[in-house]
This record gives sequence, C-alpha cells and structure tokens, in this order.
Amino acid sequence: MKNTPVRRPVCVIGLGLIGGSVLRAAARAGRDVFGASDVAVADPRAEPTVAAALERAASEDALVVLAVPLPAVDEVLRLMAKHAPECLLTDVVSVKEPVAAAVAKRLPGARYAGGHPMAGKSASGWDAGSADLFDGAAWVVTTEEDTSPEAWREAVTLALDCGAQVVPTTAREHDAAVARISHLPHLLAAVLAATGAEGGSLALSLAAGSFADGTRVMGTRPELVLAMCEGNRAHLLDAVDDALGRLGAARGSLASTGGLAATIRAGHEGREALNDLRAAGAEEIPIDLTDPEAFETLRDLGTAGGRLTRLEGDTAIGTLPV
Amino acid sequence: MKNTPVRRPVCVIGLGLIGGSVLRAAARAGRDVFGASDVAVADPRAEPTVAAALERAASEDALVVLAVPLPAVDEVLRLMAKHAPECLLTDVVSVKEPVAAAVAKRLPGARYAGGHPMAGKSASGWDAGSADLFDGAAWVVTTEEDTSPEAWREAVTLALDCGAQVVPTTAREHDAAVARISHLPHLLAAVLAATGAEGGSLALSLAAGSFADGTRVMGTRPELVLAMCEGNRAHLLDAVDDALGRLGAARGSLASTGGLAATIRAGHEGREALNDLRAAGAEEIPIDLTDPEAFETLRDLGTAGGRLTRLEGDTAIGTLPV
Repeated sequence: MKNTPVRRPVCVIGLGLIGGSVLRAAARAGRDVFGASDVAVADPRAEPTVAAALERAASEDALVVLAVPLPAVDEVLRLMAKHAPECLLTDVVSVKEPVAAAVAKRLPGARYAGGHPMAGKSASGWDAGSADLFDGAAWVVTTEEDTSPEAWREAVTLALDCGAQVVPTTAREHDAAVARISHLPHLLAAVLAATGAEGGSLALSLAAGSFADGTRVMGTRPELVLAMCEGNRAHLLDAVDDALGRLGAARGSLASTGGLAATIRAGHEGREALNDLRAAGAEEIPIDLTDPEAFETLRDLGTAGGRLTRLEGDTAIGTLPV
Repeated sequence: MKNTPVRRPVCVIGLGLIGGSVLRAAARAGRDVFGASDVAVADPRAEPTVAAALERAASEDALVVLAVPLPAVDEVLRLMAKHAPECLLTDVVSVKEPVAAAVAKRLPGARYAGGHPMAGKSASGWDAGSADLFDGAAWVVTTEEDTSPEAWREAVTLALDCGAQVVPTTAREHDAAVARISHLPHLLAAVLAATGAEGGSLALSLAAGSFADGTRVMGTRPELVLAMCEGNRAHLLDAVDDALGRLGAARGSLASTGGLAATIRAGHEGREALNDLRAAGAEEIPIDLTDPEAFETLRDLGTAGGRLTRLEGDTAIGTLPV
C-alpha cells in the first residue's frame, strides 16, 4: 500500500477455505475483490457464475487467482481462455508442477506465477475462511527462469497483502518439499488413525495428545486430502519410500535388538531443526529485482529457508535465518 | 473427599513431569504428600533419598506410587522390599505388563494395582508438572482377577483425587491399546520429523500445521520416548506391522493407480470415531464392588470405552458413551 497506491482488483475463482480467506484478506488490505465458486456463496462479492466473474476480471484487468482443487483447474483455465485470456494469473493450489503444466497447455503465453500459501485448518468451505488465516505464514511464489516478472510481482504483492511472507522457489522444489512436510503428514495421519481405531473403543478412550495431534488433519474432508496428495504422485512416492525405509528399519531394530534409539534420535533432531529455524533471528537482505540474476538470488534465498517480507519499489526485502 | 474423610498419605517415587504432577494434584485434593527423586528437587515435600521416602511411607502406612521410567522400576522395587514391603502400591509407568512382572518378582504378594494416566506434554521434569495435568484425562487402573481389592480402591481413589476418570482394564489390554494410540504415534512422529528434515531448510520453512502437529511429541527427551516404546516391544511390533501394511498398501496403490482413496477414507473414519467417542453423551452405570463378578463388569466397561467417575461407598459409578 505504501508503494502502489492503486492496486489491481483481485478475482478469486473458488471460494472454499483458502479462496474465501484470500478474498477476505485482500479486502482487508484495501483491495477491490470479487470472485465466484461452484458452490453458492451468500456474499455480495460472489458473482453468480465463474464465467461472469472472469468476464468482469477481463473488463477490470483484475489479477485472477485460481483457488479450486487440482482436479477442477483445467475446466477453470478453459473458461479463462474464453473469457479473460489476457489477465494476469496466479493460483493457490497445493501442487505447482501440474498447475504450471495445465496453464502451459490451456493458456500458452499466459503471464502466470504460481502460488501456495502454507496455511489451513481441518474445517473447509467458505464459512471456515478468515482474513487472518495467512498472517505470518509462508506463501510460495514460483520463480522460474521464464516466469513473467509482471505476474511474479502481482503474486508476491497479493501474498504480502494477505499478511504472508513469500518463499521464492521453483515448482519442482516446491512439490518435492510439500510432499515431505504436508502430503506425507496427511498420509501418516491416515495410517495412524486407522491403526488406532483398529484397537476399538478402549484404545480410542485412552487416546491423548500424541494420537489426537497425529491424526488431527484427518478431520479434513477426504476429497480435499485426496486431490492434494494424488496430485503430487511422483514426489509423494519418494517421500513415502523414505518413510517406509525408516519405519522398516525401526521395525527390524525393535524386533532384533529391542532398540529404537537411531529412529527416535533422528526424529528428535528433525524436530529440533524445525524449532531452531522458527526461533532463529533474521538478517535483512535487499534484492535488486532489475538485476538479470535476481530470480536466481531469490531461489537461493528460498533454498536457505529465507523469505521476502516486503517490496520497496524495485527492491525485494528478504530475511534469512541466522 | 466426600466419602473418606481421612485418606492415606501418598508417597511418590520419581518427581518428573508425571510424578511431580501426581504429587501436586493429590495435594490439591487435600492429601498429605511426600516423595523423592534421583534428581534433586527443590521442594519441601521431597525427601533427600528414595530410601528415606520409603521409610517414611512405611511409618505412615502411605500409598506408594512408582513414577520412574520403566528401566528404573526394578531398583525402586528392590528398595521398597527393603524399606516398605507392606505398603499398598500403585504406579504411573507407561506400560503395565512389565511393571506387573517386576512387582511379582521383587515383591511377591504385594498389594498392587497398576495405573497409567493418559496425559503428558513434550516438556519434562519437575518444573514442567502441574496440579491440573490430569483433569478430565483417562487413567487406567489394572483390574485383573487377582488384583488386590484394597490396592485397586487406593489406585482408583488417587486417580479420581487427581481429577482423572478411571478406565478399568487388564495390563495386557492396556499395553496393546497404548501401542496403537501412544507408542506408534511417537514412532511415526519420529519417522515424519526425520523425513521432513531430509528436505532441508526449504522444506522446514514451508512446514505448517500438519507437520508441526505430526512431529510435536518429538520435542520430548529421546530417553523418555525410548523407555516407553522399547518397554512395550511385543505389542508395539504388532502395531508397527499393522501400520507398515497400511503404508505399503498406500504406496502400492499410489504407484499403480495413482489413488489413495482407501487409505484416506479409512483414516478419516478412524478420526471420526475418535471425535464421535469424545462427543458422545454418557449413561451412568452403578457397579456394586461387593459383587464377586465386579471386576469382570468393570473390565467390560473399559472395553466399551467407559470410565469410572466416582466412588460412593461400595459402589463405583461408571459412565458409558451413548
């Protein structure tokens, strides 16, 4: 708001938990917002149909934000090619390679930068959304060699407007990372919930914090978890193989020597690494966006656990954990 | 407090998170409490040595509560055989069959009923304890054919005094259940934390609720997790094999058809079963403790997910989810 007094309107397609929260958060930042959803949403900012919202986006030169589950992306892109082919485009879908491929196919030449806010909760739908869902959260913006700088800046501005911090990385690196820290946790939560319930009412009656926390995300609607996990098949397979190897090694060790020290110590170190990163101080790094190698510098920042916290004209201000 | 104006003093051996909380919670209920720990605890209720605490327990006819990790149980029982062999005995150790076996070996004929409060947090030690840790929690009291009725009543009274609800079951049923809802969650949290950290700083920077919740218990000191999990080897192996089977099936399905529906739906149903049990109403059931089949009735209550909420003279009041 400091640097760009007048901002492009935001058109959110898909008004579930995430899309509905993007719309509210962008409105909180003072931006004009509207959107549409397959499911009827009782809000004056919801247009009656996706086509109507896209037509309005075209007439107002709005930023279009795809906020539908992956299986619905293709159909929305088809409508966008028809009604708003020139609009700047980002998305908040949980995987990035498949969305980039769909955009390349349906809207070749589109000015697009992918996005993914790392926030959520087990409740879903418009009513579960809130303007503060993304405050302080990480929000990936894909930063490839050929990403449109204009779309990139729009996606970054939206993320910052929504209260998030931007993690610049590639679609591929993103998908590999979220397989480990989002999709695998959902799959292990499913395995744990089913294995626990197999113990019957006595076991569930004894369940305390470890089981409740470890299965919390299984309160989410299965269709949403499936769309997310199945859409990241190749990277999730890598992560599952890693987990299967570790769990199998633990099983072998428990059966042979009775010991689990290697497994538990590695787990403790992994959790400590997360705690350390969250407790780390931050060093500010200005990145000149007019530098031809700016995107490479930005990706390196993301790889090192850094984030962008604001834009100042042609300079992005990054912070790096120290 | 309503029914037994004067209660036996409580002697807690081991003043970490759980033992320290038992001591505080029993004191909150108006009982005389003292204890001892290997680690020095700056509290006037802590005796200088375990031997001194046990001698005092013998002289005051106190209930002795073992609250040390499983590997230390044998040594405390050896001291108890020397200093307080006649005292009523319970424990709050996380597995029950190994403790029962150690008691049978070190203190044959002891009046003993095992206990296990299902509460905790990732911080450990005396300073982390609190009087309200067990409020509303489940607290298993082992209820075998040959359990001493006097010790059983003492263990139940202690649990109720501490604000918990009692789940009556056998050591074997308890150990099988906690393998699924406590020890397996810790092991899966270890696997998840290590697999996530393998993704480097980018992955940890993107970690949100699902990873943070799924790895929370790995903040606990590894020695405590190891003592708990390794002490329940046979039952934990069963639970791990169940989990490995489910994760392997998910892997196969993801690789062959790309689908995870069976896994995610079973996980969702398991979590819903937990939610349903917690939201269920409760039907009150009085159980006559002078009935020769009272213990069998009590175990059936536990198997069905029921709990005891109070004692009224010779009647235990149970609640059953409906």
